[in-house]
Amino acid sequence: MASSGPPTVETIAQRAGVSIASVSRVMNGHGARPDTVRRVERAAAELGYVPNAVARSLKGGRTRQITFAMQDIGNPAYVSMFREIQAVTRPLGYRLLLHSTDADAAAELGVVRSLADRTSDGLILCPIRVTDEHLTAMREAVRPIVVIGSLPEGATVDSVRADSVSGAALALRHLLESGRRRIAFINGPADTVPGRNRLLGYEKALRDAGVTPERGLTETTEFGIEAGAAAAHRLLDADPAIDSVFCANDQLALGAAHAAQDRGLDIPGDLAVIGMDDSELARASRPLLSSVDLGSAERGRIAARMLVARLEESPPPPGSPVRCETVAPRLVVRGSSSPLGVGSGIPA
Amino acid sequence: MASSGPPTVETIAQRAGVSIASVSRVMNGHGARPDTVRRVERAAAELGYVPNAVARSLKGGRTRQITFAMQDIGNPAYVSMFREIQAVTRPLGYRLLLHSTDADAAAELGVVRSLADRTSDGLILCPIRVTDEHLTAMREAVRPIVVIGSLPEGATVDSVRADSVSGAALALRHLLESGRRRIAFINGPADTVPGRNRLLGYEKALRDAGVTPERGLTETTEFGIEAGAAAAHRLLDADPAIDSVFCANDQLALGAAHAAQDRGLDIPGDLAVIGMDDSELARASRPLLSSVDLGSAERGRIAARMLVARLEESPPPPGSPVRCETVAPRLVVRGSSSPLGVGSGIPA
Repeated sequence: MASSGPPTVETIAQRAGVSIASVSRVMNGHGARPDTVRRVERAAAELGYVPNAVARSLKGGRTRQITFAMQDIGNPAYVSMFREIQAVTRPLGYRLLLHSTDADAAAELGVVRSLADRTSDGLILCPIRVTDEHLTAMREAVRPIVVIGSLPEGATVDSVRADSVSGAALALRHLLESGRRRIAFINGPADTVPGRNRLLGYEKALRDAGVTPERGLTETTEFGIEAGAAAAHRLLDADPAIDSVFCANDQLALGAAHAAQDRGLDIPGDLAVIGMDDSELARASRPLLSSVDLGSAERGRIAARMLVARLEESPPPPGSPVRCETVAPRLVVRGSSSPLGVGSGIPA
Repeated sequence: MASSGPPTVETIAQRAGVSIASVSRVMNGHGARPDTVRRVERAAAELGYVPNAVARSLKGGRTRQITFAMQDIGNPAYVSMFREIQAVTRPLGYRLLLHSTDADAAAELGVVRSLADRTSDGLILCPIRVTDEHLTAMREAVRPIVVIGSLPEGATVDSVRADSVSGAALALRHLLESGRRRIAFINGPADTVPGRNRLLGYEKALRDAGVTPERGLTETTEFGIEAGAAAAHRLLDADPAIDSVFCANDQLALGAAHAAQDRGLDIPGDLAVIGMDDSELARASRPLLSSVDLGSAERGRIAARMLVARLEESPPPPGSPVRCETVAPRLVVRGSSSPLGVGSGIPA
């Protein structure tokens, strides 16, 4: 570790015997007399000056850093997004700042507002809720933002969203077509945009099939394996005729499967289970979990490309149209939701 | 989004009618005539100058950024570390740069060498292997580094390590004490420091119990659920008398458990299974997986505190002693390794 501080514009100017303004001009590539350039370069070399990315960023007003802010990097959906964002941006020389907000709206707003500090060139944000304050802060941001999530009409930032309404409908249609009739739903927090959309999708798919949604068949809880198990026990205690359960993510679905197995129920014979996100947990379960893939990896890749496109536009065309893409969901059917009459394939 | 570039020292100097050197002095808090300070501040405000963290960092030679580089943020052990590093450093105003290296030694070296760019104040590195090039690069680094992992004697950077030798021994003693005799081992890549140490721990614990380790009872593979299943099938094909398997992480253990169940074996009746890391996957399995907790969260917390201590030492005392801490492992016994004769507790 070097024991002295890095050389500054002042110390280089002093050693080169030129003005600070001259050093500044040379460093910023603004041109100076050849003799001045040589003296500054020699002084910089003698003082051990290392080409300084921070200083370079001042010149162009750019840091070559991108911030990715989401709720919790422990969630496999965000891991998929991070990997794709890194894959798109690193080859272009960007570093990634990661910010886990713990679903704290104030922390999210803090990240948006901190763009004014110019510590990163742009932000990819997965907001858990989009408040008016979010929209105002994003409108006033001095750097490009791409939101992974749903924004209201008229929002002024680019976004890429999942289609959880259609995703829920895919799962419900599969259960209905395979003969299930009493289909329960374990949702995550319902006061979020994805939470509301999943409930909408569940109820719409039932109505489309001529089934009236029943309040008693829906449980709302925090995301987590234990929370999923507890919710499944409550549902099955209240209504033992439930023949299937759709869950808002794979953690909840895995917990529901454990609860069913602990009650001596066969999956999928007695109870079909479907999760959401198609994460590693879906493949960690026995039987393997059916799951709705909402395209986390693809959303991350698209968001990264949108942001890079904004960053490479120089200068950004005023009033260039706001972009919004939607990634289609995909249902992955595995053992936990085989049609009635087809076994789980696990030796007894 | 602002459509024009940020104001610069040059534009502020021009508007204030003072020299660039004067603006530089005012911005850096080096003192100037009160009239000059007022003119610079007014010009900066009129030009919409936002206090610039990048510029501030130039002044002190500090960025308030820390880099965390590890193999893959999808690994639950690194998620635990990230959460703790963020919990220690964010309240102190540090941002976290995250760098997944995909276990690429060149990428790791690139991160160490990029400290010379002064884009972060310090580095927490989880190297998958420690080569002479790593040691040289770390010795020459211009910013503090803390390694999470084992370093050779005489290394000049702070480190915090797991004790996988003792961790493996804990698992082996538990299996031996509960009556298991043919104990197989599924290791991850063996040409890494942790890989070698886990094998050492496995063989040492067997010898301490008077059992000679057999080559045929060890499989080496990549980390992953499917890889663990394939390795378990190979072991059980070759030696159906195997009564237990110790695995180098929870993914491998979960795969091994699946393979055993697919062969109609009861866990733990016919085969005990123990994993390592005590991740969410251990609680995702049925029966729940026993696992050796190597203290990922604690290692992350200690590493963050070590790095912050170096960063807040101002100036760092020359020759201050290198710190090295070891986190003790802990065995969490669950259903997958209940003593022989005790059922798994899962209804048939």
